[in-house]
Amino acid sequence: MARPQADIEAGRRLLLETIETMIQERGAIELSMTELATAAGMSPSNVYRFFESKEAVMEAVAEDWFADKIQVMEEVVASDGPAKEKMLSFFGRRFVLMKTRFDEDPDLFVNYCALGSQHLEVIRGYIDLGDHYLAMIVADAMDQGHFPGLSIDDTVSLINQMVQPYCNPDMLPQMGPRLSEEKLGTIIDAIFFGLKGSGKKQVGKSKPDMQLVS
Amino acid sequence: MARPQADIEAGRRLLLETIETMIQERGAIELSMTELATAAGMSPSNVYRFFESKEAVMEAVAEDWFADKIQVMEEVVASDGPAKEKMLSFFGRRFVLMKTRFDEDPDLFVNYCALGSQHLEVIRGYIDLGDHYLAMIVADAMDQGHFPGLSIDDTVSLINQMVQPYCNPDMLPQMGPRLSEEKLGTIIDAIFFGLKGSGKKQVGKSKPDMQLVS
Repeated sequence: MARPQADIEAGRRLLLETIETMIQERGAIELSMTELATAAGMSPSNVYRFFESKEAVMEAVAEDWFADKIQVMEEVVASDGPAKEKMLSFFGRRFVLMKTRFDEDPDLFVNYCALGSQHLEVIRGYIDLGDHYLAMIVADAMDQGHFPGLSIDDTVSLINQMVQPYCNPDMLPQMGPRLSEEKLGTIIDAIFFGLKGSGKKQVGKSKPDMQLVS
Repeated sequence: MARPQADIEAGRRLLLETIETMIQERGAIELSMTELATAAGMSPSNVYRFFESKEAVMEAVAEDWFADKIQVMEEVVASDGPAKEKMLSFFGRRFVLMKTRFDEDPDLFVNYCALGSQHLEVIRGYIDLGDHYLAMIVADAMDQGHFPGLSIDDTVSLINQMVQPYCNPDMLPQMGPRLSEEKLGTIIDAIFFGLKGSGKKQVGKSKPDMQLVS
């Protein structure tokens, strides 16, 4: 007999909250379905009614972790405005979300990161999705004349590297105190003003060929 | 009775090689002087003739790890040439050293990084030294007209963030395959062409006030 959808949702939510408590208390250990059942006060067979496998549990944990970031990316990509403003929102708003979550509970944050490293196959799709959205903003920017001489893929890769401390949660514990939205803004400016392919079209530094006209 | 200096050097070298083997086999565990003595086939009191404390051992391990990087930085800072070339060498040559050591033995590399994280007080001085040398190159670049509107300290911090994947050994296992000297060169170019302070002097994006004149 099928359970009502509301029951399923409530059971999944209870199990995800139980997992968060386990991650908080015990770090990024390998979770077993039996342990999860015990911690949630359920029988193991009951747990399988809500999640068909341990992999399905990890996918639900990742979905929870990335939900607010995906919402931000979708909103930013759908918005109007110059590509530079969109890129600043794209990285800046996610940085603020990440920093807020870290500040709330640094140990839990670090444990989640370790769990992600252990389950790269689960988070890979989210990283690819982020690259996909970034590529859309880069394509916009190229339409506006930015990043001459570079391919979209190379530009996405270079930008990811240049803002890595602002989008890689593993770096936050180490670098957090030196990161700021203001610095991120200066970096995004430098990317828009300065990032281009090398080669014959490159602006020579010994004979400048640009000047201010107003 | 003082030992001849050559004996001291040989004893220290033997102990440092023993530690490397221990780090290779057992990871970044807390080393005790007694374990070190046993592994090196020495009496504990003999070990203390070469290193007066566990802290002195860790400092010697760090000195070994950073020796080639410091040599590169000193050579680059002492060299002539445009600041952009110096900065590319400054980060590029160290990146190649780091990548080579990682490729030789990825597990040992990761264990050394973990050991460094456990002994931040020992490596702090080396990080500060790197910032000091980078500040010298930035000051050169400012003399040549780069980074208008920024302080030396802010510029050093921003550049460190923008090239972080190329100078932070903790990131190499994760990002190594996507890093290249060519991309680093494009990033350094972007830093020199695009990094500047915001404020009234900033080039407005809605009404462009620059144009190509040749």
